[in-house]
Parts: sequence; C-alpha cells; structure tokens
Amino acid sequence: MSLLGIDIGGTKAAFAVMSNEGKILHKDTLLLEKRKGKKVGAMITGRITALIEKLRNSESQIESIGISVPGIYHVKAGTVWAPNIQGWEDYPLLHEVKAAVGELPVVIDSDRACCILGEKWLGNARGCRDAVFLSVGTGIGAGILVNDKILRGSHDVAGAVGWMALDRPFLEKFRKYGCFEYHASGEGIARLARDYLNEHKEYKGELRRKPLSGITSHDVFSAYEESDHAAIYVIQTCIDFWGMAVANIVSMFNPEKIILGGGIFGPAQKLINSICEEAAKWGQPVSMKLVNIEASALSGDAGVYGSGYLALKNLEGSAD
Amino acid sequence: MSLLGIDIGGTKAAFAVMSNEGKILHKDTLLLEKRKGKKVGAMITGRITALIEKLRNSESQIESIGISVPGIYHVKAGTVWAPNIQGWEDYPLLHEVKAAVGELPVVIDSDRACCILGEKWLGNARGCRDAVFLSVGTGIGAGILVNDKILRGSHDVAGAVGWMALDRPFLEKFRKYGCFEYHASGEGIARLARDYLNEHKEYKGELRRKPLSGITSHDVFSAYEESDHAAIYVIQTCIDFWGMAVANIVSMFNPEKIILGGGIFGPAQKLINSICEEAAKWGQPVSMKLVNIEASALSGDAGVYGSGYLALKNLEGSAD
Repeated sequence: MSLLGIDIGGTKAAFAVMSNEGKILHKDTLLLEKRKGKKVGAMITGRITALIEKLRNSESQIESIGISVPGIYHVKAGTVWAPNIQGWEDYPLLHEVKAAVGELPVVIDSDRACCILGEKWLGNARGCRDAVFLSVGTGIGAGILVNDKILRGSHDVAGAVGWMALDRPFLEKFRKYGCFEYHASGEGIARLARDYLNEHKEYKGELRRKPLSGITSHDVFSAYEESDHAAIYVIQTCIDFWGMAVANIVSMFNPEKIILGGGIFGPAQKLINSICEEAAKWGQPVSMKLVNIEASALSGDAGVYGSGYLALKNLEGSAD
Repeated sequence: MSLLGIDIGGTKAAFAVMSNEGKILHKDTLLLEKRKGKKVGAMITGRITALIEKLRNSESQIESIGISVPGIYHVKAGTVWAPNIQGWEDYPLLHEVKAAVGELPVVIDSDRACCILGEKWLGNARGCRDAVFLSVGTGIGAGILVNDKILRGSHDVAGAVGWMALDRPFLEKFRKYGCFEYHASGEGIARLARDYLNEHKEYKGELRRKPLSGITSHDVFSAYEESDHAAIYVIQTCIDFWGMAVANIVSMFNPEKIILGGGIFGPAQKLINSICEEAAKWGQPVSMKLVNIEASALSGDAGVYGSGYLALKNLEGSAD
C-alpha cells in the first residue's frame, strides 16, 4: 500500500509514490508546457489514474492522494487560485480529481502549507506543533503551523508574509509585491541590484558584465562570493529584511522553529547566522531565545513530501 | 447560578458576578495598593471566597470562575508572569485559587486573550472565529483568535506584537520596548513628543506648557485637538505605525476582524479611518478587502467580560 503525493508548480508537476514512512518508491515529473486551465487538470488526472492502474493489486497499490498547489487552496469550495497557471483563478481541482479516482481519498493544500507539513513529517520541524516555513523564492510566503494545524485564516489567505510592512515610508513601487517581497525575494534581490547600479554610475564591478535587465539573484550571489561591494550592499539589505521578518514571525507566533526554504535558501543558507543576529535585535526576547532557525532539510522536495503527508493524515482521519 | 469573572490589572482587580448571558449582577474593584507577591494572591482569593459565601444557595450562586492576568499565563504550569506586580514572576495563581475554592472550576488566561474573548462573546467580534484584539495602552499586545482558539505559541508568549519591526535601521532605544511599542504605545506617544521638542527648540506651542518629562499621551491628544503642529506630527507618525501593524496582522492571519482597544483607543478612536487608509497601502490586498477594523465595543470591560467567558466555556467543557 502507498501514498501518492503530487507537487504542482508553475512549470511542472512532480508525482511521487511513497510508503507511509515517506520512502519514495517512484517519482516522475511532467512539464506543464504552456498548458492552460482544463488541459493542466486533464494532464494531472490522467497521470494520477495511470499510476493508480499501474500499481493496482501490487504491493504499492495507491491508498490515498495528496496534492500541493502553487497558490491558494479554498478548502470549503475545493478550488484553487494559482497565479502562474492560466485559467486557474478558481479551478475546481478537488471535484475533478475525485471524479477521476472514485473512492480514493484526495486532499489538497497550498504549497506553503505542504512545505511546513513536509518538514514536520521528515525534515527539520519533526515533532513540532508550532513552526513556520518561510519560503523565499521568486516570491515570498509562509506555511504556518499553529498547535499542529495549518493556519488558514478566514478565507485561506493567511501566511502572506511577503506583504509585511518593514520600512517606512510607503512607496508606490511596493504596491504590486508588498514591502518585504519587493526587497528580499529572488526578484527583489535582482531589483535592488538594478536600483543600486542605476544610482551608482561610477560602479564598474561584476554586475556590469550583463545588461541591467538581465541581472538575476544568481548573479548577485556570485558577485557576493567575489566580495563585490554592490552585491555586498544588496545582500546586507536583504539580511536586514529577512532578520526583521523572522523577528516579526517569532514575536507574533512564538514558534518552536522557523525553517528557511525556497529557491534563495539554497545560496543564502550560509547567511542564516547573520539573519539570526539581525532578528535577535528586533524580536520579543523570550521568544527569540526559545526559537530555532534552520534551513530546510528537504529543500525542493518539501512540497512533495508535504503532499504525501496530507495523504497519510487524511487516511488516518485527522487531516487539517 | 452565575459566573465570576476577575480582571486583575497592575493597580486594581475587578470582580464581576454575571449571568451566563453576560449580564452583570454585581461588580466591585479592589486596589492592589502596593501589595506584592502572596499578598496580592491572598487579597484575590479572599475576595473570591467571600463572594462565593455571600451568594451560596442564592439565585446567583457562583458556578465557575475565570481570571484575566496582566502579563503571561503559562497554561501547563498554571503560573503567571505579571511585570507590574512585584513577586509575580512565576506565580502559582491557579494552584492557590483552586486550593481556596475547592470543587469550583477555575480557568486563567492573559489579559490580551481575555480581551478578544470578551469581544467575541459580547462585543464587536461576535460570531468570529478568526479575530485579533490589538491593545494599545501603556504597552502594546494582541489577543489572537485562530479558528476559534487563542493563539498561545510554544511557550504562551504569542501575540507580542509590540516587538514588531516596522522601521529600519535598528536603534538601541528600541531594545527595551520593541520598535512598534517604542513609537506608538501610550508611553511611545509621550516619547515621540519629547523627542520632537528636543529637536525643535523653536517650537513654542501647547506642549511647552509642561516640563518635558511630564508630557503624557493625554497632553498630546489635547494639543492635537487644537491643531498643534508638534502633536499633529506625533499622531501622524503613530497613525503610520498603527496602520503598518494592522496591515501586518492582516497579511499574516487573514482575520475577519481587528478590534482596536486599550487606553489609547479611547482618544484615538476617531483616527481609525486614517489607520485603515494607511493599512490598505501595505497589506495583502485580498485580505485587506475582507477584514473589518473596528474599535472595541466593551472598552475597559473587555477583559472582565472575557474572564466571564473563560468561566462559561470551562463550564461547557470546551475552554481553549
């Protein structure tokens, strides 16, 4: 018997068949390749039913299905808002998958919820009931576990920490992303670098090798490794923002752990000590002493493991 | 049959006997008058047992007791940390009250938890499962209801929103209070006014009538009413901070309501529209559209009603 965990992203979907202990028995990935709306849904249900058929009556027959979606999951309606999949503004994914799989239990949640659940199951938040996965990639969001339940909020939009206000005054350019995400997401790192280069025409370092519009966070981290002073300025600014955000999460939630994950941690993993130092200045002192701040143990696989955990908990009748 | 709700503050304790519908049948207040440690405990248990005796076998016999404490309540240990009561660093209040009242059910929680519970029961958060009471008085804290349960965190310290980081860079003077509380608590308003007067020797307005050290938030609000420009600067700064803090709470929790209470709202109640405008710039746009931001309906009584609600829920066997 086995679990099927599916991690849908903006460009691909990962399908993992795993044991109840999280051992991966089979994993494959499908590219979305510019599919939209119902075509994405059909591709996913098609792969699910194929896997069910393939494993039927085998040792690893699929018993339960969990799905991680890149956006917001409306738990009552069973619908998905996924900004990077065209036509998934209010997509009835639960209904569609249930129609395809019949009796098999299916449960869906957002990628940020799945990341913290994956870390709780098999990663660095094992045993925690109050923990936060702070995901810093192209954008910024958080999966928040409160007393062992995912924090949903009144309309499933909780954890939108990229919108955290961290620096006065308000500037129009924050409006599209939120202040924290504007500065300190993957895109934010590139934006800060471009802003710096625009304001410092005298700068002739590493980051001038490319046209301004082509600079990525990857370029900034490479230049940082070379002690380039523009890159140092940008990364130091991000450390300030990451530290303030971590502090605010600690002061509000008093969690046992904060897990730093997403594409940027990765390269920013070695900055965690500096982030903790910055956070310690700002946060509630008792909570700051009690929290552990760690990198993701599962990195890119936190979401797929989390979707497996959803499937497992649903089977045990205690899903959030 | 009735409930006994007790709201312990730093200078006094209010005792209210109320019906299961929250109708106050009897209320009185005792001053702590510089009592410390066990003497405060003895005064409170003495009054509780006297009220129990007085009402025994009457229509309003006390059935259940709830207590609000000014600080942190450690729910597993049954102990209280109350910074404004000397000797209550880790005070075994639950044990002491239980020893005095025998079989009667007793439940304790922090003042901020009680404030949101009071508003949920009888005030502006009626019917809400996800709501926040942002208390701005001498200090700043929040009582946070997540899916109808009080957010405690891993060590009962959650909701310490006065420590929110809202303005870079970190300054040493934030270390004692937190950045938000430094600027925008009752004490913060007075601090900002003193800072302004120190930096603007040419200012000769309303706020010069008193020695600098004597200025209170009350003075600042009075001068604001008179359109004094120093007071306008201070209050506008606070509106910015209150708006950013509200936005951050909305982005993180996606609540149905935020209730603004504590001694400052009060005089700041008429500023709520301006605070909402500031918050709308910063917060996650979907959550910002869905939230209602309102003044406390119970003002100074939110805590005592909340302690009554604790007593009621405990009786019904479903206390948090």
